[in-house]
Amino acid sequence: MAKDKSYVSEAVMRRMPKYYRYLTDLEKSGIERVSSKELSHRMGLTASQIRQDFNCFGGFGQQGYGYNVSDLRHEIHKILGLTRVYNMIILGAGNVGQALANYTNFEKDGFIIKGLFDINPRLIGMSIRGIPVYDIDELESFISKNEIHIAVICTPKEKAQEVADRVIRCGVKGIWNFAAMDINAPRDTIVENVHLSDSLYTLSFRMSDD
Amino acid sequence: MAKDKSYVSEAVMRRMPKYYRYLTDLEKSGIERVSSKELSHRMGLTASQIRQDFNCFGGFGQQGYGYNVSDLRHEIHKILGLTRVYNMIILGAGNVGQALANYTNFEKDGFIIKGLFDINPRLIGMSIRGIPVYDIDELESFISKNEIHIAVICTPKEKAQEVADRVIRCGVKGIWNFAAMDINAPRDTIVENVHLSDSLYTLSFRMSDD
Repeated sequence: MAKDKSYVSEAVMRRMPKYYRYLTDLEKSGIERVSSKELSHRMGLTASQIRQDFNCFGGFGQQGYGYNVSDLRHEIHKILGLTRVYNMIILGAGNVGQALANYTNFEKDGFIIKGLFDINPRLIGMSIRGIPVYDIDELESFISKNEIHIAVICTPKEKAQEVADRVIRCGVKGIWNFAAMDINAPRDTIVENVHLSDSLYTLSFRMSDD
Repeated sequence: MAKDKSYVSEAVMRRMPKYYRYLTDLEKSGIERVSSKELSHRMGLTASQIRQDFNCFGGFGQQGYGYNVSDLRHEIHKILGLTRVYNMIILGAGNVGQALANYTNFEKDGFIIKGLFDINPRLIGMSIRGIPVYDIDELESFISKNEIHIAVICTPKEKAQEVADRVIRCGVKGIWNFAAMDINAPRDTIVENVHLSDSLYTLSFRMSDD
């Protein structure tokens, strides 16, 4: 398998989680083997696209046999970095922060939410699905005591860069950003954005015919 | 302005909401004029990329002057289809559905949530920020009485295709899908996905160096 992910294009990178999702569903349905043709049909891609994508990682299929679903899922699981545990904190315990804390599916994949942080005295001291909401003032000391890999930013956008800077200074290398702005971060910090309003505007753009 | 959006690439389409976001912030800061160079610096794009993107829609700048922030924002506002109102319903009043219903920013852009729908008797009859949660059995009659443009799917993935089929049969042309699966829809229905776990896996992929 290729070790250097800098050679993997953005488009391939975005398709890998989708492959993982489809293969997980196939495995759950008890399907043991899938051809690139069949996988392409299900996923709305071309078979050659799928073969090319997998070739980025050394290729997995056997000519005439197709892919073993469970083996391929296992390989992509490794590629996606899902064989380890990621400790996460959620910054901002408002609607989005609470919804993410209540969502249990991430835990199954090794993403463990260790705490939420907020400035609102009415939220501090609460717990969401057993996960405490801490005062944002405790952020640095919490990170120094707990190995935190990912900070999930759910603050208002005006506060997002400030809290990002704070966790980056503490050595957090992954940021999952839900604030409607782009975070500035050093090169060795990975920022992944979920811009909900951008997504909604893309929908309205495609729906309108002006 | 180009009328036919089928000529606009996926990449350009994804950047338009981002331009809108940056121009809104610039306008709020009282900045009246911006060069493509300055905009490119702020947005992490090249100036020529920005000029090319705007050329897809006929171009907006003036040589040597740059862009009038307010005019450009206004044009992109129109391109994104934000000059009209979109009536929305949320299918699934769980964590994500409730978080979206509690989020007020979409309304400012003309996205009005008319109701939530669920199968859970404990949720039906509740209201979230004044928006009622209806029994999913009332879905078809509700849509026939209210002009619904967008259905937001926040159900478990096992139910997502079923509820999508139901709203599509009722003539809903826009689907904003938060379920972790891909919706099958006819060509004239626009589906925009927010796959949270795909996004999180992309982050772990980029963070891991195996």
